[in-house]
Amino acid sequence: MRQGGEADTPGALRTTRIPLLAATPCVPGGFAPKSFVGEVVPFSVVAFREGHDIIGVQLRLTSPTGDVSLHRLSARADGTDTWSTSVALDEKGTWQFRFEAFSDDFATWAHAAELKVAAGVDVPVMGALGAEILTRAAAEKDRPAAERKRLLADAAALNNGDGETTLALSTDPELAKIFHNRPLITLHSATAEHSLNVERVAAGVGSWYEFFPRSEGAKRRKDGSVKGGTFRTAMKRLPEVAAMGFDVVYLVPVHPIGTTNRKGRNNTLTTEPGDPGSPYAIGAPEGGHDAIHPDLGTPQDFRAFVRAAEKEGLEVALDLALQASPDHPWVDTHPEWFTTLPDGTIAYAENPPKKYQDIYPLNFDNDPAGIYAEMLRVVQYWVSQGVKIFRVDNPHTKPLQFWEWLIATVNAADPDVIFLAEAFTRPAVMRALAAVGFQQSYSYFTWRNSKAELEEFLTTVSHDTADYMRPNLFVNTHDILTEYLQFGGRAAYRIRACIAATAGPIYGVYAGYELFENVARPGSEENIDNEKYEYKFRNWREAEEQGDSLAPLLRELNAIRAAHPALRQLRNFSAHWSDDDAVLVYSKHLAAPFTGTGTADTIIVVANVDPHSVRETTVHLDTTQWGIPLGDTFEVEDLLTGAVWTWGEHNYVRLDAFAEPVHILKVKEQS
Amino acid sequence: MRQGGEADTPGALRTTRIPLLAATPCVPGGFAPKSFVGEVVPFSVVAFREGHDIIGVQLRLTSPTGDVSLHRLSARADGTDTWSTSVALDEKGTWQFRFEAFSDDFATWAHAAELKVAAGVDVPVMGALGAEILTRAAAEKDRPAAERKRLLADAAALNNGDGETTLALSTDPELAKIFHNRPLITLHSATAEHSLNVERVAAGVGSWYEFFPRSEGAKRRKDGSVKGGTFRTAMKRLPEVAAMGFDVVYLVPVHPIGTTNRKGRNNTLTTEPGDPGSPYAIGAPEGGHDAIHPDLGTPQDFRAFVRAAEKEGLEVALDLALQASPDHPWVDTHPEWFTTLPDGTIAYAENPPKKYQDIYPLNFDNDPAGIYAEMLRVVQYWVSQGVKIFRVDNPHTKPLQFWEWLIATVNAADPDVIFLAEAFTRPAVMRALAAVGFQQSYSYFTWRNSKAELEEFLTTVSHDTADYMRPNLFVNTHDILTEYLQFGGRAAYRIRACIAATAGPIYGVYAGYELFENVARPGSEENIDNEKYEYKFRNWREAEEQGDSLAPLLRELNAIRAAHPALRQLRNFSAHWSDDDAVLVYSKHLAAPFTGTGTADTIIVVANVDPHSVRETTVHLDTTQWGIPLGDTFEVEDLLTGAVWTWGEHNYVRLDAFAEPVHILKVKEQS
Repeated sequence: MRQGGEADTPGALRTTRIPLLAATPCVPGGFAPKSFVGEVVPFSVVAFREGHDIIGVQLRLTSPTGDVSLHRLSARADGTDTWSTSVALDEKGTWQFRFEAFSDDFATWAHAAELKVAAGVDVPVMGALGAEILTRAAAEKDRPAAERKRLLADAAALNNGDGETTLALSTDPELAKIFHNRPLITLHSATAEHSLNVERVAAGVGSWYEFFPRSEGAKRRKDGSVKGGTFRTAMKRLPEVAAMGFDVVYLVPVHPIGTTNRKGRNNTLTTEPGDPGSPYAIGAPEGGHDAIHPDLGTPQDFRAFVRAAEKEGLEVALDLALQASPDHPWVDTHPEWFTTLPDGTIAYAENPPKKYQDIYPLNFDNDPAGIYAEMLRVVQYWVSQGVKIFRVDNPHTKPLQFWEWLIATVNAADPDVIFLAEAFTRPAVMRALAAVGFQQSYSYFTWRNSKAELEEFLTTVSHDTADYMRPNLFVNTHDILTEYLQFGGRAAYRIRACIAATAGPIYGVYAGYELFENVARPGSEENIDNEKYEYKFRNWREAEEQGDSLAPLLRELNAIRAAHPALRQLRNFSAHWSDDDAVLVYSKHLAAPFTGTGTADTIIVVANVDPHSVRETTVHLDTTQWGIPLGDTFEVEDLLTGAVWTWGEHNYVRLDAFAEPVHILKVKEQS
Repeated sequence: MRQGGEADTPGALRTTRIPLLAATPCVPGGFAPKSFVGEVVPFSVVAFREGHDIIGVQLRLTSPTGDVSLHRLSARADGTDTWSTSVALDEKGTWQFRFEAFSDDFATWAHAAELKVAAGVDVPVMGALGAEILTRAAAEKDRPAAERKRLLADAAALNNGDGETTLALSTDPELAKIFHNRPLITLHSATAEHSLNVERVAAGVGSWYEFFPRSEGAKRRKDGSVKGGTFRTAMKRLPEVAAMGFDVVYLVPVHPIGTTNRKGRNNTLTTEPGDPGSPYAIGAPEGGHDAIHPDLGTPQDFRAFVRAAEKEGLEVALDLALQASPDHPWVDTHPEWFTTLPDGTIAYAENPPKKYQDIYPLNFDNDPAGIYAEMLRVVQYWVSQGVKIFRVDNPHTKPLQFWEWLIATVNAADPDVIFLAEAFTRPAVMRALAAVGFQQSYSYFTWRNSKAELEEFLTTVSHDTADYMRPNLFVNTHDILTEYLQFGGRAAYRIRACIAATAGPIYGVYAGYELFENVARPGSEENIDNEKYEYKFRNWREAEEQGDSLAPLLRELNAIRAAHPALRQLRNFSAHWSDDDAVLVYSKHLAAPFTGTGTADTIIVVANVDPHSVRETTVHLDTTQWGIPLGDTFEVEDLLTGAVWTWGEHNYVRLDAFAEPVHILKVKEQS
């Protein structure tokens, strides 16, 4: 660990000559941090040296293709010895980074010379010291000839000159620039190389739309029976989903569904004729995890669906639910992948004394090699069918180690494959799943509804865990209909959509949200007549024509996301103050160098999270985060209504839950 | 990283079959955590597995002499998946520890059997499952024969029995105990081995007393000149220091003092005849860092002083101030250990444009090998003279790397040598010094005076950084006389002493504190007529006779510390609530297994930190931390006054700053 220029002293030391500690990005447990193409990543390190001499700190980045770039870090002015910079990573693959620190002899001299010469102290010595430094720099072979000439001329002036010359050169901006761009480095120190995985954009940015293909195009026959939707009928819905601006269509499992112990409507233990069963009871004589439910069509139909989605600019995400119905082919071919009880039967899924008789959980420990290989084969089969995104059902009920292996193995062959963890469980488990490789994670977002909860939640996911965990802010799922949505009326649906779409770069909607489907099974937190157990017949067009659809708002939100790069970043969430405990305020800012347009992009969201009232309050903004001095005014435009106001540090707002509960404001004419 | 029993799958995985994450104790940056003999160390790890099966977690400790012990961890009930236990480490040296997790098949079965049999579900299967587990356990060769016999008998009963038998055995405490003591282990998983350095008690526990030997026994002659104290006269003070109950006497530097640019009284640039100079301006023709100031005596006198201290139960700590006066022998023999300016002169210490003309700082970069070796030689010389504790002056002005090397090198030869870092600087630097090896650290304690500040400070140093940083809570130093002491009157001195002596296991006092010396040099934060630049004449006995001394309180405090093992721990600080924002409440609790007496030791400190008022308020205690149910009452005895009260969860207190500002309460008759 010893660095160049160090003492030849015994022992291997952990610290470098100039200490470099607590490098970020980093992930607890030593897993590789992750990023996505275009993400602006904050790099930081704690660096200091003994005494008063000035140090410089730089980041040496090596791209996956081997390009090396250097980035100077700035010291934060808060006494933490933390140095930081932000870099947008524009290339997919594994980057290497390390931090380097050095004694900045020029800056130390310039600082001392300015103070001492002004005070009349050590005037000749400071001139001579400066000359020595400039001469040393001029001797560096990699400096351009013109620069070396200038340095030597200045050195001569310092040697022959008086205090005035020294003062002038110690404060000369051009000379400072020469040394900023190419510092004179002594006591060079460096951290080890760290890795950072940069994944494709869709790993970190996207709006998702979930639906059950069997409901799309489902028709009730005259006899009351149902002809379910197919990939061919569901395909017709894709242009509408694309027109709403979504990027991903996520399908619940599309495999054959078991009949043994099939669940009926509302999760009952008995079925009525025609009940389609839960798509999570995977496997039947027709096939298992690599098969298509015959009711939905053929593998050809599925591929046609994927192609149709592609044509609309949509990517298909499949559900990966690693469990089996009692009718799954694995039960016969690989009984060792399940748990056999002393009576010879296979154990159902259970949470004692409750049992789930339509599901056999897998046992990963009897034949790990065999089951690992089969799961990999299943994933690779769907990858071969054009699917590169998997929403993984309950990953926390399978070994963490399995996921680490599976994701690494799949991504080694194809780094574009994305896994979303559907783990609603304890924080340590959810974070561990993200750390071992899941590109995205469901989160507690649905249950964070008050201002205080949202501030804390969004700050945490945007900063504390952002090096490895990317929340996909689903507003609802087929299993989650929160009390906020059940009892918050249509305002609640508007508010949650606006926050989900703007607070983070990934969010999702389960079909039916547009229709304000807010009736729960009594006492539960899910929709009544859960689509898992039956067909749904929805008339999207009629609802919209009658003004009973949120589709127009979703269209607007996705368009705003598309137009504003600040909304396609995770780490730039910043909460601001309002005087009302139901008015949530946050900004998403992207500095000019990162927007691609040459100007900064700043969005301010002000949301009344109380869906039952009108709130008037004052919003207080820390505009300095966006380079606007406190007290300056600027124009903002509400991207939902087009209204334009002059805003500043303190601003009056009125947010009517029943009319316009959220402002999404663009800061205009920001220099 | 793969553990036994795992799949033969490709790649090396970071996670084990049962994940074990965030093991503590640990130090940021990967340095080894530290402890001291007798310290009760909390060990914790995040562990969980997929699904509902129960896991067990244990700590495998290997002592420096190779003894292995196993300690079961308990899950904290707060949804964090954190498992913890506490172990008192009783042997000096480097311990190894690792965490192990396993599937606790017996506990999983017992839990399920109890619920399912009661619900009438799977009754025969649960009996057969239990029989299988007990049979498997009985086959383990390391179980005692009697235990194996009992397990087989129970297994037979389960196989042949009914639900009642199964229910009885699944809830049988004896059977549970067998498996708790020797669990049936499957899916065994383990972390890597971690190191933990256990140092001698004095590294973590002690009360320190600082004094200037030249002042002890100093006499003013008739002509006004001074005959300074010597080791022989200072020696006479040792019995009094020992009688006050201190463990360590710390001496400011005892080396020859330079005359060039010697500082006069109150840090003036000119001296009067007889001014002794700052002991930090080390080095004169008589010698440098390995020499004794001739005014203090000879090396023989110094050794006699060390022996006299030993006889009183006191250990001598020396100051290690690595800098030189212009008259230091190094200046001639090793000019390369200093910085030479272009004009040929050696650079003084400075903070531009200020200069410190009596001090040359060392330059560690011109000849690192040479200067490292010389510093090591100096330390080893004093170790050979019987000194094993060094108070290191301004370590943050020397390379961090140097300290990492020096402390490791010294401790490799003699692990009993202790270094105290006197670094009053930014948090990252202070923490890094502790992390690289300093056994003790000065802290911000002197500047934490309000209740809120003290609560936050003491909680942080007792928990967040306790794996590597041990604060020595000095109440004052020869350089620090805070405004709180300057303007808080005698109450301030009492309050600070009580808190310092009870809140942490190491604290210190600089001589003169007993005499309430509270006059500062105007505008500064240090005593007027700083002892660094002159002799002090103090009449300890007269002050005490007149009731003008804090010595009686210090005696009591040190006696209380000696009698109460709970006060000799760092990590057991716990803040409690009071309704008054000047009344600080905390407890120090040591559970019965760790006290050596068989009963728990619990101290409650209630301090009015406003030295100018009387405060009446209610104190609210979380007694459950000490195993006392909320609402129960218990007796407390004030160890300062002998008063006895009946206390409980809510307690009235009245603390008069001018009479009795602090209660130090012992919880009596705690079972």
